[in-house]
Amino acid sequence: MVPRKIVIGVMGPGEQAKDIDIRNAHELGKRIAREGWVLLTGGRNVGVMEAASQGAKFANGLTIGILPGKTDEGISEAVDIAIFTDLGNARNNINVLSSDVVIACGMSAGTASEIALALKASKKVILLTDDEESKLFFQKMSPENVCVVCDVENAIAKCKLYLAYRHN
Amino acid sequence: MVPRKIVIGVMGPGEQAKDIDIRNAHELGKRIAREGWVLLTGGRNVGVMEAASQGAKFANGLTIGILPGKTDEGISEAVDIAIFTDLGNARNNINVLSSDVVIACGMSAGTASEIALALKASKKVILLTDDEESKLFFQKMSPENVCVVCDVENAIAKCKLYLAYRHN
Amino acid sequence: MVPRKIVIGVMGPGEQAKDIDIRNAHELGKRIAREGWVLLTGGRNVGVMEAASQGAKFANGLTIGILPGKTDEGISEAVDIAIFTDLGNARNNINVLSSDVVIACGMSAGTASEIALALKASKKVILLTDDEESKLFFQKMSPENVCVVCDVENAIAKCKLYLAYRHN
Amino acid sequence: MVPRKIVIGVMGPGEQAKDIDIRNAHELGKRIAREGWVLLTGGRNVGVMEAASQGAKFANGLTIGILPGKTDEGISEAVDIAIFTDLGNARNNINVLSSDVVIACGMSAGTASEIALALKASKKVILLTDDEESKLFFQKMSPENVCVVCDVENAIAKCKLYLAYRHN
Repeated sequence: MVPRKIVIGVMGPGEQAKDIDIRNAHELGKRIAREGWVLLTGGRNVGVMEAASQGAKFANGLTIGILPGKTDEGISEAVDIAIFTDLGNARNNINVLSSDVVIACGMSAGTASEIALALKASKKVILLTDDEESKLFFQKMSPENVCVVCDVENAIAKCKLYLAYRHN
Repeated sequence: MVPRKIVIGVMGPGEQAKDIDIRNAHELGKRIAREGWVLLTGGRNVGVMEAASQGAKFANGLTIGILPGKTDEGISEAVDIAIFTDLGNARNNINVLSSDVVIACGMSAGTASEIALALKASKKVILLTDDEESKLFFQKMSPENVCVVCDVENAIAKCKLYLAYRHN
Repeated sequence: MVPRKIVIGVMGPGEQAKDIDIRNAHELGKRIAREGWVLLTGGRNVGVMEAASQGAKFANGLTIGILPGKTDEGISEAVDIAIFTDLGNARNNINVLSSDVVIACGMSAGTASEIALALKASKKVILLTDDEESKLFFQKMSPENVCVVCDVENAIAKCKLYLAYRHN
Repeated sequence: MVPRKIVIGVMGPGEQAKDIDIRNAHELGKRIAREGWVLLTGGRNVGVMEAASQGAKFANGLTIGILPGKTDEGISEAVDIAIFTDLGNARNNINVLSSDVVIACGMSAGTASEIALALKASKKVILLTDDEESKLFFQKMSPENVCVVCDVENAIAKCKLYLAYRHN
């Protein structure tokens, strides 16, 4: 039987995403799709979620959205499969548990909760942000599971490394 | 942009599934895959979940498993994309909210909770069981949203009807 | 150290509660409070939840409300301690897991989901309803854990029996 | 009718709690109980949860534990009312949504997720820790909702201020 698909989660700010986060998220989505991986996001039509999903669709990838609500309102059109949780932000835990690797692209309260929940679950987290306080905080919290990268190229490279390690 | 994929949920007993439930579930999975729909189940490697997922993979379909736990233990090998909720049976609400149509194949406490949660959310439920008490109970509860069928053929036909209705 | 408090859950319809359900729920709340037990409900200001909470406060009891949302909107004024879950109906699983005994007072889709989730968790359920289909359905599902009673008096008596059994 | 009880959440590390966190948590529990407030914690029998609950019971307070699991295993004996969520760490969102004010006592991945979820929900968070990176990170994230204090005395004073503000 064909093995389960690899799922990469891209987490990041919604409404408060910066331009650089949006650009990185779009590129991450594209690169993830080109690797043949499934993209998982929080599924909303704003910020990093929207940009990553659009990037993945641009490269003909498959996109999963783990929505906080239960209706179509506010869902990204670039989501192929919508998981309606109706859990509000408690769904953030599902986002990270369902991702083989978590990439945090930018920073916000929601993103911070996802990184923290990922670390609590001993998941690998790749941190793509220029926010110095975030880097210091999360690297101190879990030096072995948090990896800071400076661009999309390195995020994808790290992702491959983690996946290779996981399968051995 | 390509519209979101259609997701059909097949819910049913795990360990206590009857032979007829297993056969029906396998056939439902096959037929759902052949329609080009995504199959959603509770993702475990027993009973109706396992049989439906195996059926869908036999027909080269795409399968989503909404798992109650957070590890690979007990997951069906026929699940392509695993959503690890770590919510226990609270994940049953996600199962039904994420399904465009819910097909209940057989009966158990877990299945009954899913049907009830689906009706609470005004979802259409197709009931494929020979259990008389179940039919009477759920049809009385929601005559407009519960539809009893006697075989897989009719379940799929009803499914198409509901989907057509939904898109108009 | 003083042992943990005994928590009795009263579940039942909200908006669609019948007069008899409301009267029974109010009396159940009173009787539960007089036994020194904590009352747990879904916390909303309608139907069985509201009536049971009011009954318990009338007898100076302590009331817990497990709310589906995250704001004060729609919360019963007779709830002493509000647990805001923001889980929608997935909170129904918390309602039953947190109750030492579950009393279902009346019937609705939400109530049915709670009974089914309680049975899935091997909890004792006391069913106070005149709905014949419900009795037949749930007693067949779990003859050992479902007990049908005809009035509040018997519901409380059964409750005591289950609690005594539990502590031995 | 008597108004709803005030609920103060004390969040902090479990197994990895430092001695100073334990001492602070015990004192926080005592002080919270003496104010007549209800103490809410994650309910486990380790670290800050255990110490705060013990402190509150020492002062005859009422303690609520929002448990990640569904059984008595690992629950603090100082919890009066146990809410069994079976949500794993997704229950962290319930902890903060159900607290009128959140006090973070010490730091860990779980605690960080709770602070972040609290800020996402626009809750006030009082941060009692000597971890410099945590202070810098969370104060930058939400200068208006995060308040760093140096001891229990100031934590309680801040708590009163927030509660007074809330009721006006």
